[in-house]
Amino acid sequence: MDEFELIERFFNRRVSSPGVLVGIGDDGAVLQPSAGHDQVQVIDTLVEGVHFPADSQAEDIAYRAVAVNLSDIAAMGARPRWMTLALTMPPKNDEWLAAFASGLFEAAGEFDVALVGGDTTSGDAVVATVHITGEVETGKALLRSGAKVGDTIFVTGTIGDAAAGLEMLGRGERDSFLVHRFLRPRARIETGCQLIGLANAAIDVSDGLVGDLKKLLDASEVGAELDIDRVPVSDAIKARFDESHRTRLALTGGDDYELCFTARPDAVNGIAGLTAIGKVKREPGLTCRQNGVIVECDDSGYRHFQ
Amino acid sequence: MDEFELIERFFNRRVSSPGVLVGIGDDGAVLQPSAGHDQVQVIDTLVEGVHFPADSQAEDIAYRAVAVNLSDIAAMGARPRWMTLALTMPPKNDEWLAAFASGLFEAAGEFDVALVGGDTTSGDAVVATVHITGEVETGKALLRSGAKVGDTIFVTGTIGDAAAGLEMLGRGERDSFLVHRFLRPRARIETGCQLIGLANAAIDVSDGLVGDLKKLLDASEVGAELDIDRVPVSDAIKARFDESHRTRLALTGGDDYELCFTARPDAVNGIAGLTAIGKVKREPGLTCRQNGVIVECDDSGYRHFQ
Repeated sequence: MDEFELIERFFNRRVSSPGVLVGIGDDGAVLQPSAGHDQVQVIDTLVEGVHFPADSQAEDIAYRAVAVNLSDIAAMGARPRWMTLALTMPPKNDEWLAAFASGLFEAAGEFDVALVGGDTTSGDAVVATVHITGEVETGKALLRSGAKVGDTIFVTGTIGDAAAGLEMLGRGERDSFLVHRFLRPRARIETGCQLIGLANAAIDVSDGLVGDLKKLLDASEVGAELDIDRVPVSDAIKARFDESHRTRLALTGGDDYELCFTARPDAVNGIAGLTAIGKVKREPGLTCRQNGVIVECDDSGYRHFQ
Repeated sequence: MDEFELIERFFNRRVSSPGVLVGIGDDGAVLQPSAGHDQVQVIDTLVEGVHFPADSQAEDIAYRAVAVNLSDIAAMGARPRWMTLALTMPPKNDEWLAAFASGLFEAAGEFDVALVGGDTTSGDAVVATVHITGEVETGKALLRSGAKVGDTIFVTGTIGDAAAGLEMLGRGERDSFLVHRFLRPRARIETGCQLIGLANAAIDVSDGLVGDLKKLLDASEVGAELDIDRVPVSDAIKARFDESHRTRLALTGGDDYELCFTARPDAVNGIAGLTAIGKVKREPGLTCRQNGVIVECDDSGYRHFQ
């Protein structure tokens, strides 16, 4: 099967999609941007053996490759529209390809994202790169750089689940909730869109809460106080990990694809599923408090302040 | 050096570019599409050991990764605007990264394409994926599907040089012209833009002239007659390869990144550097003539008609 047959069989689903004048099958896709909107473009790669275990299911790899990009779109407050895929892989059978396509279209279908083009190439390991284009009303994109002194810091959902899930996968365990949180992150597109005009700065939690929050603070040239006791963790994590372990998971584990953002304290009262976890301060640096004590946090872990 | 430092040091050139509201450094790029234009999006991957020899120069790899995408943009008649890069690689030293960045920005700089985002990941081999967004006046993109019976078939430049250059590289030869044509293809952006409103169908010659022309004919639901004697080959090829070998290079060698298009016979008289090589016919299939004799061509070679 050559590349053209492969694309025809597994990736070319002829669905008419808004704004797609020409999809898969020409030298490029022809797309119609919406008037009155800026575009948000993101690209992210998952590498076999680096971002996912080599024995992962094709469906899960594809789903995550789309979801991690959707999460970046969500962090900008944009709505995803179009996607392209660059898939490098060793020779694979039809079953693998069908499963990969199924995971890809599952993630894309949740937010009506159209696959408009791609490239499949051969290589020794699976390398899946997804590019997504989103749209946001002109001038309204959420940036990392807008946090203001006095803002409250919020996160969506619960934090640390994906890192816990990855640990468990590594031990051959298959706890359904935590492992699912790693394999099937659901991007916070709806919340991102709701935050337009309300949040002052936003980032997605992909590398770990402390590290990502620091990037937001640096971009905004402010500091913050983080209340560790308030960082929301799931019952599943509480049931399986002691306090010290789950704090590490929540502060430094990545792959949650929740949103972390700052807003005036009462600005987001109407939005469900948010937890306030800290305050933006003028003084640079991140101060963390746990059980009333100041502890030192860094990207790679945390330890009690001496 | 972590990913953020790496991007800062080698890829984040803070040049203000038209339409780039936010470039590298946030969760995504924020871009301003031009009113009255459609967008063309393309994505292409080069894999070490598959698309380029493992001992290739980093500069050449990067240049080609951009150029092959620019060529797809050219084939649609669009003007390239923005680019994102997904680079997977084994641990590399600063020299390699600086050379890669240099080749990347050289190719992008030739057509004022801005690097607006990317992702760098580790893997066992270099896998370089580039995504480019171009713009074309609304409704004017050149497609593969518009060829009309009676159209003349044209190509730009000379055909077969890159395949010849790759052969020579494989033998350790370094003929400057032919090897350069493989390593440093220059996309026909200007010609593509000139063809808007004049060409009826276009494709770039990346997989080989016969194979690519057949894709155009299939998309247009027409056939053609190709005059092999008229396919333009360079003096460098003539000097080094006999007729049979150079015909094979010209008809089936890929990687030239010239344009092949169809237009009314006199429509493109004003454009320099074009060669008429055949005619579009109603009858399906591709008939090839050489030295007055009909020969059979297929994607993988050609042989005399029996």
